[in-house]
Amino acid sequence: MPALDKDQLAALREVGRAWDRTSASPRAWRQALPIDPSLGAYPPARDFQPEGFTRLVSAPVRDGQLPAIETRRSAEVPPTSAARFGQSVRRALLGPPLDASAIAMERMRKLVALPVLSADALSSVAYAPEALLTVLVLAGLPGLSYSVPVGAVVIFLMLSVGLSYRQTIRAYPQGGGSYIVASQNLGRVLGLAAAAGLLIDYVMTVAVSIASGVAAITSALPSLKAGTTWIGVGVIVVLLAGNLRGVRQAGAVFAAPTYAFIGAIAALVIGGLVHAAGRGFQPPPVRHLTASEGLSVLLVLRAFASGSTAMTGMEAISNAVPAFKPTEWRNARTTLTCMITLLIAMFAGVLAIAKLTGVVPEASQTVLSQLAHLSFGDGPLYIYIQGSTAAVLLLAANTAYNDFPRVLYLMARDRMAPRSFLEIGDRLTFRNGIVLLSVVSALIYAAFAGYTNALLPLYAVGVFLAFTLSQTGMVVHWRRHRDDPHWRRSLALNGTGAVMSGIVFIVAGITKFFSGAWVAIVLIVVIIVVALRIRRYYDRAGAQLALRPEQGRTATSPPELASPRVPPARRGDRGDERSADGLEAETAEDPGQITNLTIVPLTVLDQPSMRALAYAAALGQPVFALHVSPTTNEANRFSGYWQTWGDHLPLEVVVSPHRAKVAPLVNYIWTLHRQWPDVTLTVIVPEIVTRRWWHQILHDRVARRLRHALRGLPGVVVTSMPFHLVTTTDRHPPPRA
Amino acid sequence: MPALDKDQLAALREVGRAWDRTSASPRAWRQALPIDPSLGAYPPARDFQPEGFTRLVSAPVRDGQLPAIETRRSAEVPPTSAARFGQSVRRALLGPPLDASAIAMERMRKLVALPVLSADALSSVAYAPEALLTVLVLAGLPGLSYSVPVGAVVIFLMLSVGLSYRQTIRAYPQGGGSYIVASQNLGRVLGLAAAAGLLIDYVMTVAVSIASGVAAITSALPSLKAGTTWIGVGVIVVLLAGNLRGVRQAGAVFAAPTYAFIGAIAALVIGGLVHAAGRGFQPPPVRHLTASEGLSVLLVLRAFASGSTAMTGMEAISNAVPAFKPTEWRNARTTLTCMITLLIAMFAGVLAIAKLTGVVPEASQTVLSQLAHLSFGDGPLYIYIQGSTAAVLLLAANTAYNDFPRVLYLMARDRMAPRSFLEIGDRLTFRNGIVLLSVVSALIYAAFAGYTNALLPLYAVGVFLAFTLSQTGMVVHWRRHRDDPHWRRSLALNGTGAVMSGIVFIVAGITKFFSGAWVAIVLIVVIIVVALRIRRYYDRAGAQLALRPEQGRTATSPPELASPRVPPARRGDRGDERSADGLEAETAEDPGQITNLTIVPLTVLDQPSMRALAYAAALGQPVFALHVSPTTNEANRFSGYWQTWGDHLPLEVVVSPHRAKVAPLVNYIWTLHRQWPDVTLTVIVPEIVTRRWWHQILHDRVARRLRHALRGLPGVVVTSMPFHLVTTTDRHPPPRA
Repeated sequence: MPALDKDQLAALREVGRAWDRTSASPRAWRQALPIDPSLGAYPPARDFQPEGFTRLVSAPVRDGQLPAIETRRSAEVPPTSAARFGQSVRRALLGPPLDASAIAMERMRKLVALPVLSADALSSVAYAPEALLTVLVLAGLPGLSYSVPVGAVVIFLMLSVGLSYRQTIRAYPQGGGSYIVASQNLGRVLGLAAAAGLLIDYVMTVAVSIASGVAAITSALPSLKAGTTWIGVGVIVVLLAGNLRGVRQAGAVFAAPTYAFIGAIAALVIGGLVHAAGRGFQPPPVRHLTASEGLSVLLVLRAFASGSTAMTGMEAISNAVPAFKPTEWRNARTTLTCMITLLIAMFAGVLAIAKLTGVVPEASQTVLSQLAHLSFGDGPLYIYIQGSTAAVLLLAANTAYNDFPRVLYLMARDRMAPRSFLEIGDRLTFRNGIVLLSVVSALIYAAFAGYTNALLPLYAVGVFLAFTLSQTGMVVHWRRHRDDPHWRRSLALNGTGAVMSGIVFIVAGITKFFSGAWVAIVLIVVIIVVALRIRRYYDRAGAQLALRPEQGRTATSPPELASPRVPPARRGDRGDERSADGLEAETAEDPGQITNLTIVPLTVLDQPSMRALAYAAALGQPVFALHVSPTTNEANRFSGYWQTWGDHLPLEVVVSPHRAKVAPLVNYIWTLHRQWPDVTLTVIVPEIVTRRWWHQILHDRVARRLRHALRGLPGVVVTSMPFHLVTTTDRHPPPRA
Repeated sequence: MPALDKDQLAALREVGRAWDRTSASPRAWRQALPIDPSLGAYPPARDFQPEGFTRLVSAPVRDGQLPAIETRRSAEVPPTSAARFGQSVRRALLGPPLDASAIAMERMRKLVALPVLSADALSSVAYAPEALLTVLVLAGLPGLSYSVPVGAVVIFLMLSVGLSYRQTIRAYPQGGGSYIVASQNLGRVLGLAAAAGLLIDYVMTVAVSIASGVAAITSALPSLKAGTTWIGVGVIVVLLAGNLRGVRQAGAVFAAPTYAFIGAIAALVIGGLVHAAGRGFQPPPVRHLTASEGLSVLLVLRAFASGSTAMTGMEAISNAVPAFKPTEWRNARTTLTCMITLLIAMFAGVLAIAKLTGVVPEASQTVLSQLAHLSFGDGPLYIYIQGSTAAVLLLAANTAYNDFPRVLYLMARDRMAPRSFLEIGDRLTFRNGIVLLSVVSALIYAAFAGYTNALLPLYAVGVFLAFTLSQTGMVVHWRRHRDDPHWRRSLALNGTGAVMSGIVFIVAGITKFFSGAWVAIVLIVVIIVVALRIRRYYDRAGAQLALRPEQGRTATSPPELASPRVPPARRGDRGDERSADGLEAETAEDPGQITNLTIVPLTVLDQPSMRALAYAAALGQPVFALHVSPTTNEANRFSGYWQTWGDHLPLEVVVSPHRAKVAPLVNYIWTLHRQWPDVTLTVIVPEIVTRRWWHQILHDRVARRLRHALRGLPGVVVTSMPFHLVTTTDRHPPPRA
């Protein structure tokens, strides 16, 4: 529950005063209750520790009167076998629920933080050099000769963005994601643009990382090629289950593959150097390459944009500053520097070795796989390199699983995404965001059949939009904080980062516009528009749902009714513009403002009906029964039965010659409501509940249809009186047969 | 509503007496009501004539106080544009609703009854001779030479079954379908077997007739051949709409095509005779026919079984005896005789002409089409013959639309089919049966892609099972009615019919067992089993739902409670075998037996919550609020707000450290119920209702999930307090903003 502001507290107090005048005293209410009022209502949370691993929390035990929590089976209500089975599966997959106290996050040492937070960034070395070369090779050998200068520009980009983020870490020690930085400094819309870019980025990260990881596997085992789609989707399902279970804290799981991958690239570079040295660093033998495109500025720019995808995941450390040991921002900055250095070294190394050995992208094998084959043949080192590449790529997807739900959480906190993304599941994970990410990325992965490069155009646009906005936001930040001793230098660094990222954003947007970037741009716009509309919706809904200060006061005018049992005269004539919505009866805030009228719709006179009548009368409010008959004869017969029963309650009969049952009832109630808009109409609907859902077909659906139809009527309260049939299981005979 | 029997009336009276003791006087209830009690509750049905063609019936107008019925738009509640559009479409397709008084069926003259009731039977001349020849031709020329003797046996069969039905008409002047005759004379299971056979028969009639009708069209226009499936499904949709609209009475629609078809067959026979006479009745030139099978007894029997499908639809007249003008049974019998004569003449004529002209079944063209070509070329007479054949076949399908829902209605009346088949729609049709028939037959037609002969094996089994059981039932009938002057002759005739139909049933079942008859047999068994289970279910459910005589008396023991507001001491210990079902609180039949406890589950303190609290307090029953907090801090904060409000009602807080919201509430309520099984717990759930369904995603679903979870709990009544958000349409600003 969000905290109430001062106005709302005042309204609450005001509303309470109205109760003082119109309701029985609190003591009277309490005395009427069977619940022991002496019970402390808030026992410490430890008392509610569930027995076994049940997901249910016990009701407070008072003086031994109320039974303690049930054993797992009986406490799960309703205890259908399907529900039990579902819960067992859930528990086996996701583990027992976690207590909120576990939310205190472990602080990470730098040596742990580096692999955990940089898996995404470092793993991009597995595909970014290849993406760069794949574009250049289109222009044949002359194109490939540009790999060194283009790579150099990408490295400069990494350097400047890396230095930029060092500034962000210092400025936002509570964590400075693009969404936060952009919306705090550039306003709501640009913040949303950054968030939209990130959301797309994360979906793409999952799809691209898994595609690359699967490609690393199928390069080693070509026989698995046919199953590419299924392997990838399977990995996403594993990631989904793992993240729902909450693998976030499993630092060791991340550390091993990331360090193994760093070692693998080092081995590759050294092996390549040895290989080249064996040939005396001669230029590699010239292979015939068919150029499908001429060498052009556009081609080189496209290669640059593709190579820049190496920079995804760079934001992770600046997001997670609070997770470091103190002094947090200092440690985070050191880790970032370390990561950038590694990234540049690995990226440059792979490009250089490819150049030296003359390896060229092929459809059947990744560049890394070719390089590994060249240096190490098919031996265990090859398998190690491919294995660690696949592992780190699959783990990189996991980084997105941390950040995607977090961005949605931040948006939801600002009321720009559905509130359900705020929910923390019983495993302390943002369940809904995790599921959404899995579904969307699995669909995209399957649609592209795991072909990585087709996905990259969508990727770069989102990432670099977020980078640009984040860095631009930082420029604004420093201009506002000119008291900072280093603000000029920081502004310069962030400015350079912003310009560089902006250039990549524009280059990627233009060069890849028709090959997919337009999709990303359209998606970003759509996300912004939807988020703004959600915000507007929540603002309006909130205004209606919140307690309003003036309401308590205006509502305390003494009720005009002589007796609370008799509704006031018809008021439909006044306040027509309000009665168009018919919401008068929905503003009542204290019992004195409510005048009840109870209606029991009946089609037959059977046990459920009699029970509904008895219940309605027991409430002690004015009540009448409403019967719909298809003919006058039928109506007379019903009335006869009513007399036999004793005519204890007023009966109204509507003859419906067209045999409609629900529509005449709704029409009657609607008309009644319009006549007395201030009266709260309670409709008590007897409803037969069967043990098996398919038995419900054998009963009419009048109750359900009536409830559905009345749902839209203002001032009408629908009470469902369930009547439980015991028919299928012979173990439970009918209560009295 | 079904009539109450003597015991139930006594129970009603007894229950009423309990009310006398525990409830306020009827006069007091009436005085508390805003409804004018002087209003006669049953104005004649004419007063409820809807204005325009609205489907809604007005609430009774009393002293001008209650507004008269709304105009069509505003009376339809909720007035969403989608609902309005749906209703307009419905009305355009199906016409305005009909008053029950229109149910008085027009009596038919014999000249009208003949075409209306025999369209199905006579139309089978279009496919039965062909089906017979198609089997024989498998054995080549020697096979075809058997067409005359096999045809003669079929004609003898027609004669004997026809004479049998003459007896049935005399014995069952209220209409004697196979289901009625068989179940009255042979018992429930055999009655169901007949019904199952008929149900399958009717589905097959639709599929086969439409397939043949479409074949007649595509024989004339081969270019339409590719669209066979779509044309047939389209015809079923038209039949569906027409029958929902209620075309039953449209005698003229039937008369024309049927008589035209009779004329067409006559023309064909005459044309064929002329053609044969032109050749001096020489045997037709011998064509080379490749025999794919040897001539065998089995083949001849199969041909016989196929030819017997000419007899479908023979039951129609005996079903519809009450629809004739008086003396009904006499007129019906004359019409039946007439129909049999025509059927035999047409069947024999077509077979004879085919023999004389040497026409042989071909895949590309029907036999009738070939005969017509032969005599009349491509001229207007050919078109007339094909057109009238197609028309009568499509109309024949319509006969099934009359009878299929009627059989289901009769079964539902005997509680052996879902009650919904009893419903008469606002067009006085058995809506649900019509829809079911359409869906099933369209699926079958599409699955077989309109290839008629593949469907025939399923057909014959059902028809002849029903015939056999019906005639056997008549034999039993006559043995029981030996006072009838002609019982011996009637018994002999029905006996012959039974034996003949039985032979065909066995022949069809054996010869076509593997080509599809087994499906029909399995289906019949499944239908019988399901119907018996439905009956058992309804019997058990009825026993629980009905008013029971002993109940009123046992329940009138004076309530043990000192004050109706305070629940009795815990009673969970007694009557454990009953409390296993936890249904104690569901047996109350008068207000004195009900002790209420109201619970308001809250997650936040906003307008809907305050309204739910006010409503709960206004009911005047013991009430407390139930809050679920994820942490103790949160719980303390909520409690603080509660104090600010004034602590008017008792508050219980459950801390749910795993953040589950619904499960702790359900568990709490369930535990409370087990502690006080005799207390009726009313749970008042505030529920936000949005104007657009997709806005509902933006709110949590706690209310809905809670309602769903509580549905299974006995003795728990769920009240839904809707709170209507006005957010989307700018025309309706929030009430107070």
